Amino acid sequence: MNEFCETIGIRYPIILGGMARVGTAPLAAAVSNAGGLGLLGSSAWGPEELARQIRQARQLTDKVFGVNIPVRAQHAPGLIAVVMEQKISVVATSAGDPGIWTRQLKNDGIFVMHVASTVERAVKAEQAGVDAVIAEGSESGGMTGPEEISTLVLVPQVTDAVKVPVVAAGGIGDGRGLAAALALGACAVQMGTAFIAAEECEISRAFKEILVMAKETDAVLIREDKMSRRVLNEAFVEEAVKMLAKHHPDIAKTLEAAPGSGTRGAGQIAGLVRKVRPTAAIIDDMMREAHAILPKIKSNLPEL
Amino acid sequence: MNEFCETIGIRYPIILGGMARVGTAPLAAAVSNAGGLGLLGSSAWGPEELARQIRQARQLTDKVFGVNIPVRAQHAPGLIAVVMEQKISVVATSAGDPGIWTRQLKNDGIFVMHVASTVERAVKAEQAGVDAVIAEGSESGGMTGPEEISTLVLVPQVTDAVKVPVVAAGGIGDGRGLAAALALGACAVQMGTAFIAAEECEISRAFKEILVMAKETDAVLIREDKMSRRVLNEAFVEEAVKMLAKHHPDIAKTLEAAPGSGTRGAGQIAGLVRKVRPTAAIIDDMMREAHAILPKIKSNLPEL
Repeated sequence: MNEFCETIGIRYPIILGGMARVGTAPLAAAVSNAGGLGLLGSSAWGPEELARQIRQARQLTDKVFGVNIPVRAQHAPGLIAVVMEQKISVVATSAGDPGIWTRQLKNDGIFVMHVASTVERAVKAEQAGVDAVIAEGSESGGMTGPEEISTLVLVPQVTDAVKVPVVAAGGIGDGRGLAAALALGACAVQMGTAFIAAEECEISRAFKEILVMAKETDAVLIREDKMSRRVLNEAFVEEAVKMLAKHHPDIAKTLEAAPGSGTRGAGQIAGLVRKVRPTAAIIDDMMREAHAILPKIKSNLPEL
Repeated sequence: MNEFCETIGIRYPIILGGMARVGTAPLAAAVSNAGGLGLLGSSAWGPEELARQIRQARQLTDKVFGVNIPVRAQHAPGLIAVVMEQKISVVATSAGDPGIWTRQLKNDGIFVMHVASTVERAVKAEQAGVDAVIAEGSESGGMTGPEEISTLVLVPQVTDAVKVPVVAAGGIGDGRGLAAALALGACAVQMGTAFIAAEECEISRAFKEILVMAKETDAVLIREDKMSRRVLNEAFVEEAVKMLAKHHPDIAKTLEAAPGSGTRGAGQIAGLVRKVRPTAAIIDDMMREAHAILPKIKSNLPEL
């Protein structure tokens, strides 16, 4: 029994990472409907738009879903007010001090997770009272910590350092990654990039096809002051757009016609994203693959 | 049954990574005696010193061990001649074109592995005829590829791209890492940093204690032209030396009195290295932990 899943009320230990403009109601609801935990990525929305997205998600699913809130955002207080008003049961905070909102959210009965990029930040989140830590390695897409610690290194060390459940994030895209994360001591995984290519994701079809073309080396880190951002390399995107325009002009046209069209965020696991599929297929295949890999781990591990 | 282990003639799927001045005969022999595959790290040696180290290792173990050779080194031809004269059965090449030596080594019946830091480099190694690819992520210590792809991302993608066995390297330090690597599709792991703290390693006791003090964020990447190097942060080392000098003056004295005293190479997994132990204890604990984690993976993976 996976206690983390039981506590939150989900079937599978797979969380949709909070992604601005990508994690909209249709994708979050699709992940929850498929047995995972959808998270609405609120960082590009004001409070009214978040409330609208929550209402839309509730029309699309009767399963639990949550909201990701970037603590450092100027409009964070308004977003926090909305999740409390709307009685959202799970919130993942990121990009900022976990001490600011955790107590208030928990007093309201909300299950709070916080994204941490180092052992020290994970310990700080636990001290702030979070229910779970999302240990996110630097291979992840979008905003990522400046310390550039990988998921494989981070997860076991965070697991040793905190008592709360640990969710592994960054570099996970299939059942092998899920099984590996559980081996490292995580209770669940959070995925972003793999879900960008989901049919239910509202980002343009063109961006999804560009993501499918990307290799692991095409998702590069742009180092900024307090945070870094991992995005598809500009030169690669230009080439990919040209190829799309030549071979699939209809798809190329969608590039500027959808929410998130300005986004290039993607993790190194982009190289493992090989087709656009329904969300349920991504999750089902992942669970099946994780189950299938267990006997292989055992057979490759010699007896003592 | 682990076919890779059977083919090479080792008991456990654990390889000592090639490390200049650290991977000397006593450590390589200790890893092989404990059931793994010791590799002599030849990059700082001339041919005569390599021949001497091979003779010494043969006095210390009757098990199979191998040699790591950096292809790009000026003295590589001399080192290659020695491994052939000495009838070494396993060679791991790194840092350079796998096409240069692979055929010649294989014609001599040697099992050849090549270290690759991207999917493309792994495919190139397979095309050059290697028997196995060592997929090394950028969290690893010492020399590492400039592309900075993490092990968690690299291993499954390399596994999909090549038919030869894949060894996972970078960021692995215990049984959880071993189980995770097998979940990702690797047949074995290569570890460097965790073995630096082995009692049999000839590096100074002081450096081992400094490594034990290090957190995951203390092993930083120094970016150079064709390759990067991951080493313990200079400021951290200075502080650690001061602490040693204050609390353990006898250990501090060993810093300049051993082979490899000028080395600071270490991977991000340094934070998981918590004490100086015999090599056999490192390997035995790792195998036991990997076995112990299997039922936990299963219990945390909900049924379909």
